Amino acid sequence: MSQISRGLEDVLIKTTSLTFIDGIHGVLRYRGYDINDLVEHSSYEELIYLMLYGELPSQKQLSELKAKINESYDVPEQVINIIYSLPRNCDVIGIMESAFGIMASIYNPKWDRTKDRDVAIGIIAKTATVTANAFRAKEGLKPKIPRPSSSYSRSFLEASFDKEVSDIEAKVMDSALILYTDHEVPASTTAGLVASSTLSDMYSCIVAALAALKGPLHGGAAEEAFKQFVEIGSPEKVEEWFKTNIIEGKKRLMGFGHRVYKTYDPRAKIFKRLADELTKNNKEGRRYFEIAERLEKLGVDTFSPKGIYPNTDFYSGIVFYSLGFPIYMYTALFALARTLGWLAHFIEYVEEQHRLIRPRALYIGPEYKEYVPIDKR
Amino acid sequence: MSQISRGLEDVLIKTTSLTFIDGIHGVLRYRGYDINDLVEHSSYEELIYLMLYGELPSQKQLSELKAKINESYDVPEQVINIIYSLPRNCDVIGIMESAFGIMASIYNPKWDRTKDRDVAIGIIAKTATVTANAFRAKEGLKPKIPRPSSSYSRSFLEASFDKEVSDIEAKVMDSALILYTDHEVPASTTAGLVASSTLSDMYSCIVAALAALKGPLHGGAAEEAFKQFVEIGSPEKVEEWFKTNIIEGKKRLMGFGHRVYKTYDPRAKIFKRLADELTKNNKEGRRYFEIAERLEKLGVDTFSPKGIYPNTDFYSGIVFYSLGFPIYMYTALFALARTLGWLAHFIEYVEEQHRLIRPRALYIGPEYKEYVPIDKR
Repeated sequence: MSQISRGLEDVLIKTTSLTFIDGIHGVLRYRGYDINDLVEHSSYEELIYLMLYGELPSQKQLSELKAKINESYDVPEQVINIIYSLPRNCDVIGIMESAFGIMASIYNPKWDRTKDRDVAIGIIAKTATVTANAFRAKEGLKPKIPRPSSSYSRSFLEASFDKEVSDIEAKVMDSALILYTDHEVPASTTAGLVASSTLSDMYSCIVAALAALKGPLHGGAAEEAFKQFVEIGSPEKVEEWFKTNIIEGKKRLMGFGHRVYKTYDPRAKIFKRLADELTKNNKEGRRYFEIAERLEKLGVDTFSPKGIYPNTDFYSGIVFYSLGFPIYMYTALFALARTLGWLAHFIEYVEEQHRLIRPRALYIGPEYKEYVPIDKR
Repeated sequence: MSQISRGLEDVLIKTTSLTFIDGIHGVLRYRGYDINDLVEHSSYEELIYLMLYGELPSQKQLSELKAKINESYDVPEQVINIIYSLPRNCDVIGIMESAFGIMASIYNPKWDRTKDRDVAIGIIAKTATVTANAFRAKEGLKPKIPRPSSSYSRSFLEASFDKEVSDIEAKVMDSALILYTDHEVPASTTAGLVASSTLSDMYSCIVAALAALKGPLHGGAAEEAFKQFVEIGSPEKVEEWFKTNIIEGKKRLMGFGHRVYKTYDPRAKIFKRLADELTKNNKEGRRYFEIAERLEKLGVDTFSPKGIYPNTDFYSGIVFYSLGFPIYMYTALFALARTLGWLAHFIEYVEEQHRLIRPRALYIGPEYKEYVPIDKR
């Protein structure tokens, strides 16, 4: 054991039955179901059941699940108070860390396989509350708790905004949640797994995952991709911007490339379709979509020989923008969706393969040194 | 890559110049200095400098460090508000998670090697504030911010209690902080490292570490060890309790055994000496010390052939108890001390060997499944 596993690359930290990725052929499946089928035919509530219980739900199971979600949107008053007492320019993932820290402190559930899935469903509901209110607080709006509606996605959007939510918006939000639900064990999931391995409560495991997601190398990619479109400004400026910044300036094209996919990320294709659909009647959104489409073509022409293609974050920002969310919310919306994947991994780990995670470090520092008093240094 | 590294056992996640452990001979050193020398001759402030900057400080460097600490005890008002608005029976590590989540959100510092050590020193000071006030809130006391004194340990104790702090108490607290400062890469450090690998802000890295420390398999050992002494109640009952619970009942003797040490944990010996010293004039504490001493003898007689000896948590609870802290604070005091080790590891990782931590999971779930509509399930 003298070789460092840098970045834990190729280290297998667990087995999983949750998410299958074929990076060569661009395939993503949750528990065997293809991501395209799920987005087209299923719903986020069905996916919650699938991820937590292993099978798609019957009508009765789905109704019970929806009832549990609908009962669980409320959060402790301290959570609402802290969200609305933070400065408006504060970081949104930090707000979510505080909110879940408070709930870890108050609820502090013990692991118990007869109750873990109910705790998880409660957390999923409360994540909608926290995410919507983090947004509202930063926008200077008043608190608003999600209320039962035809879907989790609709309830979340209705709590976020003080406007009518259309069917297509609710459907697109639902699809975005499905697309971001899980992606095996990236840093956020890994940080949460380490916490779950000490049998820390599930809220704290979410806190650990959020803390890792907050880093610009992980959760921030959709924001960075969208900022490019804003910087470019209009479709006819794409070619020049690409030449100046990417070809000559050697800048990294954000929203392109993935450690696992060496072809089109299947999620990118779906997000493109959603963005196309949603911007048909949205002039500003349409402009960004056209910028993105041109940029995509140049990027693929240039980088596809190296296996670098658009990833899930390339078009997702346009979807979130068109739903009405500002750039700072994109990582929070990622977190909203990924909470389900995190929880499913924690439960899988604790129930099926639990072991305290305790790697080693290789000591390369000084040999024994004699202590020298401060007046002789 | 088809073998699972369960618990990441024997996986080397990084190199380090911080902490050297020889589990066979019971040796622990920070940057080459033996733990016994540091406890005897040094101070926690010197250790902060040593861990963050690599060398013991000159008098001038030490004075500057102390000045920085003294300037940094204040925390945002939202932190104090949340600590004092939580129910008194809530979990103390959860309080700390919330507090650092709030500071992550408000301060949100970027990594910058010209500023990282100042951020770290600020966090160390603020950890004293958060820990002392989490205690005060749970005890129904009023907020109290640590104020400059002859040492960090004294300032922390004076903020925690509304009583005089003796020189020996301040000195013992200092020693306890030194003893718990670092121990390579246990789960808490690992969770924080994963967060630091995404370049998440340093406060969030602490949040992730706290979330992992919170689990009963990690931070709770000192509490569990002390609860045994309380359960036993008096020294003459030790033999019977041991026979009933450990020999016949096959219960685990808490505060004994360690994945790394196969002899006396060097910290256990020092904590015993500190507990002895501190309980000389403390009748209740003395009783627990005598219980512990008898229990230690039985434990060593029984388990030392298997390489199982007292670990750092066996006597530390008696020290914390004698300082005036209730059992629920022991893990928080561990966190107070370990914050320095965590920060030193994060800085070492980001500055010297940064790479995004992204292990893999081995998929063992179902092959492709066709989606079946809900009315046909």
